Amino acid sequence: MKKDAYAKLLELSKNTALLTSIQALLDWDQETYMPKDAIHARSLQIELLSGLLHKAKTNPQFTKALNALIDVETGEIQDDRLTPLQIAALREFRRDYLHDSKLTSAFIKNFSKTTSTAIHAWKSAKDHNDFREFAPHLEKIVSLSRKKADLLGFKDHPYDALLDLYEPEMKTSYLIPLFTQLKLKLTYLVQQIAACPQPATDFLNGEFPKYKQMNFSHQLLRAMGFHGDTSRLDLTHHPFCTSLHPTDVRMTTRIHPDNPMFNIFCILHEGGHGLYEMNLNKDFYGTPLCSAISLGIHESQSRFWETLIGHSLPFWEHFFPRLQEEFPEQFNAIALPDFYQAIHTVKPGLIRIQSDEVTYNLHIIVRFEIEKALIEGSLKVRDVPGAWNEKMREYLGISPSFDGEGCLQDIHWAMGGLGYFPTYTLGNLFAAQFFAAFEKAHPDWKAKISQGQVDFIREWLKENIHQHGRQYTSSELCQKVTGKPLSAEPFINYLEGKYKTIYHI
Amino acid sequence: MKKDAYAKLLELSKNTALLTSIQALLDWDQETYMPKDAIHARSLQIELLSGLLHKAKTNPQFTKALNALIDVETGEIQDDRLTPLQIAALREFRRDYLHDSKLTSAFIKNFSKTTSTAIHAWKSAKDHNDFREFAPHLEKIVSLSRKKADLLGFKDHPYDALLDLYEPEMKTSYLIPLFTQLKLKLTYLVQQIAACPQPATDFLNGEFPKYKQMNFSHQLLRAMGFHGDTSRLDLTHHPFCTSLHPTDVRMTTRIHPDNPMFNIFCILHEGGHGLYEMNLNKDFYGTPLCSAISLGIHESQSRFWETLIGHSLPFWEHFFPRLQEEFPEQFNAIALPDFYQAIHTVKPGLIRIQSDEVTYNLHIIVRFEIEKALIEGSLKVRDVPGAWNEKMREYLGISPSFDGEGCLQDIHWAMGGLGYFPTYTLGNLFAAQFFAAFEKAHPDWKAKISQGQVDFIREWLKENIHQHGRQYTSSELCQKVTGKPLSAEPFINYLEGKYKTIYHI
Repeated sequence: MKKDAYAKLLELSKNTALLTSIQALLDWDQETYMPKDAIHARSLQIELLSGLLHKAKTNPQFTKALNALIDVETGEIQDDRLTPLQIAALREFRRDYLHDSKLTSAFIKNFSKTTSTAIHAWKSAKDHNDFREFAPHLEKIVSLSRKKADLLGFKDHPYDALLDLYEPEMKTSYLIPLFTQLKLKLTYLVQQIAACPQPATDFLNGEFPKYKQMNFSHQLLRAMGFHGDTSRLDLTHHPFCTSLHPTDVRMTTRIHPDNPMFNIFCILHEGGHGLYEMNLNKDFYGTPLCSAISLGIHESQSRFWETLIGHSLPFWEHFFPRLQEEFPEQFNAIALPDFYQAIHTVKPGLIRIQSDEVTYNLHIIVRFEIEKALIEGSLKVRDVPGAWNEKMREYLGISPSFDGEGCLQDIHWAMGGLGYFPTYTLGNLFAAQFFAAFEKAHPDWKAKISQGQVDFIREWLKENIHQHGRQYTSSELCQKVTGKPLSAEPFINYLEGKYKTIYHI
Repeated sequence: MKKDAYAKLLELSKNTALLTSIQALLDWDQETYMPKDAIHARSLQIELLSGLLHKAKTNPQFTKALNALIDVETGEIQDDRLTPLQIAALREFRRDYLHDSKLTSAFIKNFSKTTSTAIHAWKSAKDHNDFREFAPHLEKIVSLSRKKADLLGFKDHPYDALLDLYEPEMKTSYLIPLFTQLKLKLTYLVQQIAACPQPATDFLNGEFPKYKQMNFSHQLLRAMGFHGDTSRLDLTHHPFCTSLHPTDVRMTTRIHPDNPMFNIFCILHEGGHGLYEMNLNKDFYGTPLCSAISLGIHESQSRFWETLIGHSLPFWEHFFPRLQEEFPEQFNAIALPDFYQAIHTVKPGLIRIQSDEVTYNLHIIVRFEIEKALIEGSLKVRDVPGAWNEKMREYLGISPSFDGEGCLQDIHWAMGGLGYFPTYTLGNLFAAQFFAAFEKAHPDWKAKISQGQVDFIREWLKENIHQHGRQYTSSELCQKVTGKPLSAEPFINYLEGKYKTIYHI
């Protein structure tokens, strides 16, 4: 009878997964090929599907089947014949169920209506460089996010409940010392580098035709292990990666015809996300065992390829000659060490998405501290621009003149995504800690990759991370793969080791 | 209260329309961009959506609201305050409802399972040129189609019930004399033309690079009235046009780099379908007033552009110089009359989709006669190849040596689409009859189009046909636009007038 309950659970959860994948296609299409004027019809299609999805997730039959296997209140397993994998799946089914059932339809509708209006207001406020236009909307969003935290429940800090949506089990009390340590080390490193002469980068600007950039993109993706039968690459405005199924992974990029590096690092980044999705175990499709653990772990996979591999010297020992082949006029006269230096320019800037790997996390810490303060009520919305500018000056030594290049630059708050930003930094920390373990497992990685071997990296990630899906929580996985809980040290060691050499500090 | 019923009806039917549009996106994606290995996941997504769609169409709330406005048994209108447009919509809502409710879920599941297996068997049989492999599957399909006719109900001929799914209210007894007359005239015309020397066509073969063909495609679509904000064009294997909404119309084509004409006529054909979808009145989205009347009327729109406009001399007086600009090496030495003759080659062939406008309908009549005989039981499945070859010899003077180029060439029967083929010929007849009315309304059409004016054609079609959606049945529309019921005469007049001139008969 309880075996039937598990089968029923799988049947229903598979439908939920299929609906989610259809929604992913609608989103992907909207950002790639949809004709512009179809946006109104598209929003109706998405609204309908969201409703169906919410219904599927909170279907009483699903609750009943779930409860027969695991007590949704206490988390206690109800059947001792279940395998460890099934138990792991049930733990995660329950986690999702608790999230989905605690937020009422009415709340979700109100939240989504508020953010939909807020996004319009944010765009306009950003255009006008006027935070006051956006402020009343942000106030509503903060208040609804506080309400969301109450509905979801928390022990110590309301921000925990929001964090938990993106990085399950992550706590504010864990983040604060982690980010404080990181902030201290990074501000110091940034200052040290700023005192050094910066490398020449002018040769990275020129004419880099789109189709040639795309050729090189496909070369990189092939090296990473993608082939056209289970994935694709398209163009969009704000690059992303989505997956409908492990056999249907869709990456996107953007080509700047005057500089090839944005696209290259975008490909490695989205490719990292894509490999995670492609290497999930499709036999478990429809269960949490065929899903990514958290946004932090997902981001660790993209940053692993973009920064730790894709900014390494051995990687470019192999790929720079290939880049020269594609762009002989632009790069044949450039020596590898100069190229390598150029891609390691560090320059405190105002815009997060344009920032380098050294300054990047300081941008995130600014956002984390502000949104945490908003949620706990220690900062008023009207004081956000002041707090932003002050923190930017303190951590990065520069401060925006306009809100558009300051606290209005990102869409996340307008989308209601408070609690999301920290996962970017967690991704960087996880990536560096995983990388240290990878280095131990493959002490010869530099020699291999400089000879064009890339497969072993993908295999290591698949075996250690991807294939498990949500079998482990992110902290369990971190412990299992690296032998230690997450810390900032491997990341700081990586940055310091690298940049002190490059900049002769 | 009854006003509420109409509002409720609209709300529910809008959801059905949205689900249908999502299904259209899944289909479009599958034929254009989906990675190959995603096919299994895609079929699960489509299966789930089909189930939701069937539920939406047969939702008891919908039935209740419909019945409050129109008696679904008798078709009698239940509220005299309804407007003529609402009454027209209700008549068509009822038509769909009767189709949807008469076919049980169990029947649909069985039918779709049978055809899904049959498609595999058909592909294999076609590869092996062996009809016997496909025969048992076709037997099941014929028997299920007969059952379908019984479930749907009919008065005179079971084939009527199948026809009605694609061409509402069309009757077998109407088709028989229509097609007989057509067959006699066409076989004679084909024989007359076959006795004449054929024009040179060698200059149509050569190197015609893909991107240049695409440039010309977009030029044609722009002339027809498409712009990128509500439509798009992509590449596929078997070109089609689909629409998610009047603001989201998607055409596809296929490029043969050694001959530009397949793509050009494909663009005009799919563009004709696309204009119909784009010009439907989106204020009525979700109701039959924002849907195409029938497959025959749809095909009339594609053939109107592909043949009557796109094969006309004045059309090429304007566009041949543009084609020469795109392909100067290939066409600068070619005179327009030679090009015009070359695109009017008539040659009885074995393959329907490669056939010209004179022989095309004979291919359809072969199929119509065979499937009608299968449904009425006067022909056994095992005798299909013999009957096919015999009819081909009689109507076209040639006969296939293998079943792959004979009765196995089309996928339609494997898909369970008995009743579909006649709509191709109906499309040609409607197109010619509409064209005669268009010529009367615009006696100066030749001068206008030869000067590159195309807008007035689209406007005439929009005003007379597209904007009405399903307000009229196809026979009502034909009467309204042309003043006469559908007949084969305008089509025969068009063909005879044209080809007797070209071939000096």
